[in-house]
Amino acid sequence: MASSPSAFVPGHITGFFSTHSHENPEKAGSRGAGLTLSDGVRVSVERARETTLVLNDQRVSMAAVEGVLDRLGVTARVTARTELPVSAGFGVSGASALGTALTVNAVTDGKRTENELITLAHAAEVEAGTGLGDVVGQARGGVPIRLEPGGPPHGRFDGLPVRSRIEYVSFGGLDTATIIGGDTATLSRAGEEALAALLERPTLDRFMAESRRFAREAGLLTDRVEETIEDVRNAGGEASMAMLGETVFALGEGLSTAGYDPSVCHIDGGARVERA
Amino acid sequence: MASSPSAFVPGHITGFFSTHSHENPEKAGSRGAGLTLSDGVRVSVERARETTLVLNDQRVSMAAVEGVLDRLGVTARVTARTELPVSAGFGVSGASALGTALTVNAVTDGKRTENELITLAHAAEVEAGTGLGDVVGQARGGVPIRLEPGGPPHGRFDGLPVRSRIEYVSFGGLDTATIIGGDTATLSRAGEEALAALLERPTLDRFMAESRRFAREAGLLTDRVEETIEDVRNAGGEASMAMLGETVFALGEGLSTAGYDPSVCHIDGGARVERA
Repeated sequence: MASSPSAFVPGHITGFFSTHSHENPEKAGSRGAGLTLSDGVRVSVERARETTLVLNDQRVSMAAVEGVLDRLGVTARVTARTELPVSAGFGVSGASALGTALTVNAVTDGKRTENELITLAHAAEVEAGTGLGDVVGQARGGVPIRLEPGGPPHGRFDGLPVRSRIEYVSFGGLDTATIIGGDTATLSRAGEEALAALLERPTLDRFMAESRRFAREAGLLTDRVEETIEDVRNAGGEASMAMLGETVFALGEGLSTAGYDPSVCHIDGGARVERA
Repeated sequence: MASSPSAFVPGHITGFFSTHSHENPEKAGSRGAGLTLSDGVRVSVERARETTLVLNDQRVSMAAVEGVLDRLGVTARVTARTELPVSAGFGVSGASALGTALTVNAVTDGKRTENELITLAHAAEVEAGTGLGDVVGQARGGVPIRLEPGGPPHGRFDGLPVRSRIEYVSFGGLDTATIIGGDTATLSRAGEEALAALLERPTLDRFMAESRRFAREAGLLTDRVEETIEDVRNAGGEASMAMLGETVFALGEGLSTAGYDPSVCHIDGGARVERA
């Protein structure tokens, strides 16, 4: 533990998804598509007698992070920093879980491969009920398409070969656990249709259009989100809602052109360990 | 074709490998492990009546790039720039092929996914006889482990969750086509043993040790390469030979500590389209 590696895990916005439950959390998850963001979570860990998690200088509890540490059989002081809004559809819990897995493995001279650590973090996140597809998307980077649910080797993935500036504004959170723990039949049907439509024409414009259709059909749009998307569309831009938060994301300068003061980032390359 | 995207594809050093032939080039390839490098190839394309390839301001011919353009049904002027030595074990032909696939798809508003483009470039490189595993490693980034040969969805991949500074020196090229087109039984046996040993203990040190064992057992070491590796080892560092080139790579400051004047880069995150 002499050296002090940290991990950077990108934020992940899901545009649309369907839920797939399985008794084995490594095989459960979601199908769908999203964007990974250069705004993300940086995680460092120190071994400690008792596990604590400090996110942006505040002591918090995250079941997914605790699940990762349990699975790795260690207790640690985990420090996470992010510019992303929390509980607003950016996958902060998934990023914290994956960042913890990668960093603990590095500081303990661990002997797990990337696939093993991704699947371990994915399973912890699924069991915590806080996400179904963020961890695998964040591990992959780019514009991840989740073809089959679960962590590797169960899940199967593809992506869109594009990069873009991304803008976002967030008005607050939605309760992921309540939504993905409730009746997801309508949502999942809409998500399957969106995925089929994207695979038929795998472009960023199609991704945005199908994300909007999903948000509407799944009944998740709030008034503020709907108005903001409408504003961006009226200004000639492309925007949709981040699943699951009261958050609007747009391609390029979509939100600024429409008069908003958004956070600005770009599509990212994926989670990585960084030696200090 | 108004906008002008380019692609960056990292260099890829293979430490060890086994060859796996198949009549379908999408399923043929290699198993093994390597490093992707932040030194790489930047590719841009313009549609043109006749296909030409200019690498570092010199007109050259690369069968893998031509194979990509044929498969995509376009003719184009391809411009590639790299700081990497050519034909020296850095996967410049694979990077050029993958970069061409990604960039042509972007400039033609193409409708292929990342997996489709990777597999197309992989197949073109295999048919050209210039590489068996560079394209899929370069697409993935990091420290790719090729568990099963071929492009996605045939190939299977994992990786080591580590990052490091990498140094390299190159004394010249080896003829990849002659070596992988010849009798590869001894080489492949050594490569399979190295892969099993790495999966048993997936760390960077083990990767380096197995790469050295592979180079020796496969009979590919030249005197200059062997001496240089020895110099790094004597200075307390970790080094091995890049497959297939008369090239030595080292972790951290291995070569500079041993008195060499190496090129310096670091482990990279994988191929990406970049909008100009």
